[in-house]
Order: sequence, then structure tokens, then C-alpha cells
Amino acid sequence: MIQNNYLIIMAGGVGSRFWPMSTAETPKQFLDILGLGKTLIQQTIERFDGIVDPKNILVVTSKAYKAIVQEQCPELKEENILLEPCMRNTAPCIAYASYKIAKENPNANIVVAPSDHLITNTNDFQSVVRNGLKFVSENEALLTIGIQPHRPETGYGYIQIEDPKTTEIINPVKAFKEKPNLETAESYIKAGNYFWNSGIFFWSVKSIITAIETHIPEVAEIFQRGNAVYGSSKEQEFIDSEYPGCINISVDYGIMEKANNIFVHSGDFGWSDLGTWGSLWEKRSKDNQGNAVVGDEVKLFDSSNCIVHMPENKKVVIQGLEDYIVVESKGTLLICQKKEEQRIKEFQK
Amino acid sequence: MIQNNYLIIMAGGVGSRFWPMSTAETPKQFLDILGLGKTLIQQTIERFDGIVDPKNILVVTSKAYKAIVQEQCPELKEENILLEPCMRNTAPCIAYASYKIAKENPNANIVVAPSDHLITNTNDFQSVVRNGLKFVSENEALLTIGIQPHRPETGYGYIQIEDPKTTEIINPVKAFKEKPNLETAESYIKAGNYFWNSGIFFWSVKSIITAIETHIPEVAEIFQRGNAVYGSSKEQEFIDSEYPGCINISVDYGIMEKANNIFVHSGDFGWSDLGTWGSLWEKRSKDNQGNAVVGDEVKLFDSSNCIVHMPENKKVVIQGLEDYIVVESKGTLLICQKKEEQRIKEFQK
Repeated sequence: MIQNNYLIIMAGGVGSRFWPMSTAETPKQFLDILGLGKTLIQQTIERFDGIVDPKNILVVTSKAYKAIVQEQCPELKEENILLEPCMRNTAPCIAYASYKIAKENPNANIVVAPSDHLITNTNDFQSVVRNGLKFVSENEALLTIGIQPHRPETGYGYIQIEDPKTTEIINPVKAFKEKPNLETAESYIKAGNYFWNSGIFFWSVKSIITAIETHIPEVAEIFQRGNAVYGSSKEQEFIDSEYPGCINISVDYGIMEKANNIFVHSGDFGWSDLGTWGSLWEKRSKDNQGNAVVGDEVKLFDSSNCIVHMPENKKVVIQGLEDYIVVESKGTLLICQKKEEQRIKEFQK
Repeated sequence: MIQNNYLIIMAGGVGSRFWPMSTAETPKQFLDILGLGKTLIQQTIERFDGIVDPKNILVVTSKAYKAIVQEQCPELKEENILLEPCMRNTAPCIAYASYKIAKENPNANIVVAPSDHLITNTNDFQSVVRNGLKFVSENEALLTIGIQPHRPETGYGYIQIEDPKTTEIINPVKAFKEKPNLETAESYIKAGNYFWNSGIFFWSVKSIITAIETHIPEVAEIFQRGNAVYGSSKEQEFIDSEYPGCINISVDYGIMEKANNIFVHSGDFGWSDLGTWGSLWEKRSKDNQGNAVVGDEVKLFDSSNCIVHMPENKKVVIQGLEDYIVVESKGTLLICQKKEEQRIKEFQK
């Protein structure tokens, strides 16, 4: 059974939100952004230990990141590092990997995971993954993980199910909801039948290819044509030529919101998409004043609720800052109020 | 006449107040702390162009700074770099240089200047210096420069004269005053007969040696004994052996407050002792929001009245800081409220 389990890791993001720590050269998934000793993509792979054989792990990333993936993930087969010549969002990325897997193993069951999220309870996560893979191997279903929401977060999309009183852990999806405003988010929490959309998916390779053919046939057409070259020396040439012609669409818009066999597996395993400095700060260990500090020579005075990330051995004295981000990486220093972090893109110009 | 003019530059300070820019390895006088293209000691020497022949300039500094003085001030004769084996405040420093000058030229007229002050109007300063040297060549007087005060500064000592209505530019000193509190400083400004104590002195070598012999005879005794070795290969050995035996006393306490031939020359030439980040900020050119910035890749957003000093080419984004010091030097970063700068020593521990 385990030999039918496959993992697709999406690692093409260029994440500029954690600038100057993340940059186009080294986006977030390739950083040890929490100071844990492993990069986020390494943690992602490790999380599937015992469930997916490393030879069945595919990473889809940008050509620019091939070397860094090989360096950080030496257990991967080179031909399983799929290189997008350009970014076309998640649907073409998943389609490419799925058609490639289908050629190798038409009985594959696939879990798709982002490369840059945090999960703290690996045991509970693995239970959900085993359940999910089993479910999609037995049902022609597209399954996603919905996280039990702990607060009216406005930074996540939500997944609605019909019955707030359900005792099932897997339920049909009623609707996907965009990132809500605070009032709406609060109503979701109160209603009790909403989950955070984790962006983690399960399906058999047969089910996802059927869905691609049904809902985004123009994408299916491209990757069907590639069938002759997957695994051959001509694969990259084909992708370089055809991939740019794919529409730019997410799997959520392209498939999940259209299909009628969508299910959600509820989960509660300490998940964060680490999408903002604020979410990072929440997940970090903090001192008595609420400061989350990485950097072994950082001294704080009269400061609270700051997130400080400094290079090793850099001497830093910070006095009198409250609710600030102070980050230095690759010779660039950012000092910014936490509440203004959405302007980080503007700051980089 | 010019061949009788001598300059003693006091450059032994270890100034930790501008940490991390100034350090024990490179104190303030050896830094271009204002970003003007020359270090403070280089600016100090330049200020006496045309008044004192470079061969008549003596720098008294710590042994640790000999190389940096030679590098920054190549116009100095090596034997005119006087090396204190330890710090004994300004009276022994001035006594050593004075006895050495007396041996070389008993008709010398001397100006003594700190190495780390700022003067912006060199023309007016030079007029005062020429006047001062002339005055002490004609009178057995100890003359100091008193700066016309522009505000009730509590960071400076004051010099009192008798008559607030005097039209003379040189007046006898009535009293020296310690750094006052704000209320007292305001009363000084209102009274009109107080100057800021600049720490710049003029005297003939005869007058200062008489004063040393009269008021600090134990110091005189030491440097009289050295007369045989000044200018010889045995000078440093003598100083290393005898200098530590000097009492630790300033020229203000040891001589100026005791002697009865003390005069003050009023001056107004854009002077600052650059003793604090706040005084530095005042002297710097500032943007529309009052930020004084050194560093060619520094971007500020929503920030005002900050002093920012960053290495060349370092990319820095600062958002949302008001009245802060942000300085990086030698790999150390300081972020600190301006009003807390007196704690910088504490921060370094």
C-alpha cells in the first residue's frame, strides 16, 4: 500500500512577505524561519516519514530553485524535482505532477502539500494523512484538510460544511469562502461549521486527472500530450515549451469550487501557513515581555511583543520598542511596526 | 611669530557614548562621526591651517592609538605623538606636552584643543585663535574660550564673568560652574554673563609651567625630571615609568579654578562638543521629518527626528520610529530612544 502513496510538494513561491529574510533568491520554504534547525521544506518532507517513500516524493518548484532543493533535500530523486519555467499558480503545477505520477503508477494516491507551512503536532497530522489517503483510495473523492479554527482569523480562506453538529471527521464541502473581514470571520466561528482552508489535498491520481479533464480541459490537453516524454531526457524541453501556455489558475478556483465530489477532513494539529510576521510571532517561543527572538547576541531593554530575527553572533541592542519587527538578513535591515507589515512589499521598492 | 605657535591636541578619550560607532578600539576622535569625509581629529588639525606649523602640533593620546594617529595624521612628526601609558585626565597630559615644548622652544605660545569637537565656522574660530595667541604672548595669562550660549544646555560647564554688559571680547573669569540643572542653566542665560566652557585654552609655555609649578607641584616635579630625556630615545621609557604616578586631575580643577590670572575669550563659531547623540543630531543636516541620516541605502517611512547611521551600501528600511537612534557599526546594531541615550554604557555590558 505504501508504494501507492505519493506526495507532491509545492515549492515555487517567491514569498516576499518575509523580506528581508525571504527574498526571490531564497524564499521562505528554503529558510529555517523559526530557528528550529531545519528549513520549512525539510520539515515538510520529514512530516511524511513512514507514510510516503522518498522515491515517491515530487517537488514542483521554479528552475531557479533546483540547486537549493537538491542541496536541502538530497533524498529526492533528481527526476522528481519538477521545474516550472514560469509561475502558473497551483492548478498547472498539480496537473504536471499528477500526469507524471499517473504514467509511473496509475494506482497512486496523492497528498499535495505546500512547502512553507508549520505543523507542530506531527502525530496527529500523520493520522489525518493516513486517513485521508485511505479515504481517497476507496472513494472517487477530492479531499482537503480543514483546520479547526481557534480565532476569527482574517488571513485564511474558510471551508463550510452543512452540519455544525456533525460527528464525522470527513464531510462533504458545502462552499469555499474567501478571506473574510473580521465581522464575517466572527460569524463563521460562532456558526461552528467552518474550517480554515489548509491548502493540503488528497486524491487518487485517477480522480484528480478526471477532475482536471472535466474542469480545466485546456490544462489536461497540454499534460496529456506530454505523456510520451515524462521520465525521459525530453521532459524538461517539453515543459519549457508548453508550461507557459497554461492558464494561470489555482486548484481551488479551477477544480475545488467546481467539482461535486469535494470533501473536507477536519484536523487540529497546530497548523499555521506562516503567512505573516504576525503568525510567525504567534508560533515562536517568547520571553516574559512577549518578545520572540532569534539571534544569540540580542539584548532587549524596555521592549515587548517584538519579533527579532538577527544573524548568529550579531551584537544587537534594542531599547524601547513595542510591537515591532526587527529583522536582518543578507545584509539588509528592516525595522517595522507589526501592524504595518502588509507594507513590506512597498518598502522593498 | 608663527614659529612660536604650538598646538596640543588631546586625543586620549575612549568615548563610549557613541557606541557602537565609537569603541575602545576606535573612539570618536578617529571617526567621521558626521559623515563629512574627515575624522574629527583630522578636522581639528585642519582648523589650525596657517596658524600653527604642522611640526609644532603635538597630539597626546593613548599608546593604543599611536598607529591610528599616524595613519590619520601623517603630517605629524612621530616624536610629537605623545603616548600616555594610562589615563590621568587633562592636567598631566597638558603638563607632559608643555614641558616637552618648553625644552624645544621656551618662547612658545600654546593653544590646547580637544580632538573630538565640532566647529563649523573656521574663519571666526581662526580669528579667535589668532587673538588668543597674541593675548597670551603679551600677558602672563591663562586664557580659555567661552562660547556664547544659545540655549540653557545642561550638558556643558559654564564660565562666569563679572559684567554682563562688557564690550570686551577678553574678560577676567569670575568663576567656573559645573554642568547645571535646567533651572540654573536658564538663570545663566538670562543673566547674560555666562559662557559655555569649550575646553580650549591658550597660554605661553612660561605661564602654564609657572601655573603647574604653583598649583600642582607634584606633577611639575615629575615632568621637570624628564627634561633630560624629552626628544631622546629614552623619553617613552621615562613616561611609561613616571606617568602612572601622576595624580588624576583635570586642568580645570587643578589649575583654572585656582589661578588668579584666568581670562575668557568669547567666541561664537558653531561649536559643539558632540558629547551626545542628541548634540550630534542637532548638528546634522536633516530631512523634512527631522531625520538625520548617514547611509546611502536607508529608506524611512513614517519616521521623524531620528538619527540613523548605517554603513555605506547597507540596505535599511525603517518604519514607524520617532525620536530614535539607529546605528550600526562594526557589526553591532543599536536601536534606542534618544531620550535614553545616557543608558548606552549600560547597554554595552
